[in-house]
Amino acid sequence: MAGLLSLFKRRRPEKAPGCSAVIVAAGSARRMEGIDKVLAPLGELPVLVHTLYAFQDCPAIDEIVVVTREDLLVEVSRICKDFAFRKVTKVVVGGAERIGSVQAGLREADPEAELIAIHDGARPLVSQEVIQGVVEAARLSSAAAPAIPVTDTVKWAEGGRTVETVDRSQLWAVQTPQVFEAGLIRGAIQKAIDDGEGLTDDCGAVERLGMPVTLTRGSQENIKITTPLDLAVGEAILRARGEGLL
Amino acid sequence: MAGLLSLFKRRRPEKAPGCSAVIVAAGSARRMEGIDKVLAPLGELPVLVHTLYAFQDCPAIDEIVVVTREDLLVEVSRICKDFAFRKVTKVVVGGAERIGSVQAGLREADPEAELIAIHDGARPLVSQEVIQGVVEAARLSSAAAPAIPVTDTVKWAEGGRTVETVDRSQLWAVQTPQVFEAGLIRGAIQKAIDDGEGLTDDCGAVERLGMPVTLTRGSQENIKITTPLDLAVGEAILRARGEGLL
Repeated sequence: MAGLLSLFKRRRPEKAPGCSAVIVAAGSARRMEGIDKVLAPLGELPVLVHTLYAFQDCPAIDEIVVVTREDLLVEVSRICKDFAFRKVTKVVVGGAERIGSVQAGLREADPEAELIAIHDGARPLVSQEVIQGVVEAARLSSAAAPAIPVTDTVKWAEGGRTVETVDRSQLWAVQTPQVFEAGLIRGAIQKAIDDGEGLTDDCGAVERLGMPVTLTRGSQENIKITTPLDLAVGEAILRARGEGLL
Repeated sequence: MAGLLSLFKRRRPEKAPGCSAVIVAAGSARRMEGIDKVLAPLGELPVLVHTLYAFQDCPAIDEIVVVTREDLLVEVSRICKDFAFRKVTKVVVGGAERIGSVQAGLREADPEAELIAIHDGARPLVSQEVIQGVVEAARLSSAAAPAIPVTDTVKWAEGGRTVETVDRSQLWAVQTPQVFEAGLIRGAIQKAIDDGEGLTDDCGAVERLGMPVTLTRGSQENIKITTPLDLAVGEAILRARGEGLL
């Protein structure tokens, strides 16, 4: 009977491991025309609202932790309530550096979650395909990130003069969400903090442990909003999506 | 008397060397939704018309040679006539590869020109500042190109897995126009053709001779139109410029 039960258990479809998303919307104090970039309007909704809809609507995501700045805490909490983002379990204050904000988010994420997706709050146009693809890859390989090929001609320069053209055939521009086995990213970020290392992205912390990161298909549309031009580009993408052009 | 004359000559302000522009609008056979990218409409004018206006209006440019595909020759010639681009001296047919098109343009440019500016026809939003800046730098240093810092996190990857994060602090994405002392670029392109080398940009041919290229200030707005998304971005830039946002 015990044998039968365990057989039955084994034959049940395995529940996919849970994935918590940490949305880093702490930014620096840098503002665009007086508005924090994550709250800037994009197609009539704040940038962060687009971002949260993408994760709220994604079946691969079970929980969302939002990390923000202290002075935005009330506004961001209000947004989560007003738009009824029911997957958002916590809105927390981040650190002065990005890595501190990531750590604050990791600390608040469900300890049972097997995967953690870390995403820039300022990437509002991430698609379901990109999120699903990277979560699936992380299930298989512990660490994954979406990327697009570098299409610009890239030069290595010193003192304003080119030294050489970089072979771009193996260069990839990485995006977010970057998804990791939870214990791996917690350990990697803690080690980076202990070592006093800055990070441009979370993959870097994992790579520093000697582990490769699987790259998945990113999207040209998954832009990071940093400048007024980026906002104009974001508007153009939304408009083109609305017209079925993209 | 002869001495006085030569002194007089030396003291006259030197005429700045002439600069011919070679606009490469030959492209591949790749089309966007049935329309060749250089003829695609951008804010009600074809992409190439924006490009030609930028060079026509630039005091640093004395002559324009347009290189195009055989099947676009009539249409491109008609555009140059209809819009009265009086600096356009020739519209010529390019080669199957970009380097052949550049060579065709170099062959037709005024042999007296001291500088040659080579520009992608599909970069319609280049500003006067970018063109002027790179022409001035080339006058001082024989070879110059506009560039912007790489802001993406860039990974070196093999077989779909990251190997390392590339230090981006010395990485620059180069744009066009790239401007060269005329004899230098003619020799460099001829050597690249003789060596059977492909090129992603013309600077590469000069770098291969062991000469550095001076980088000047490019612009995020100086995009290359390659995809429908790029066209949407171009529209957004035009609109933002119209509203005084950029």
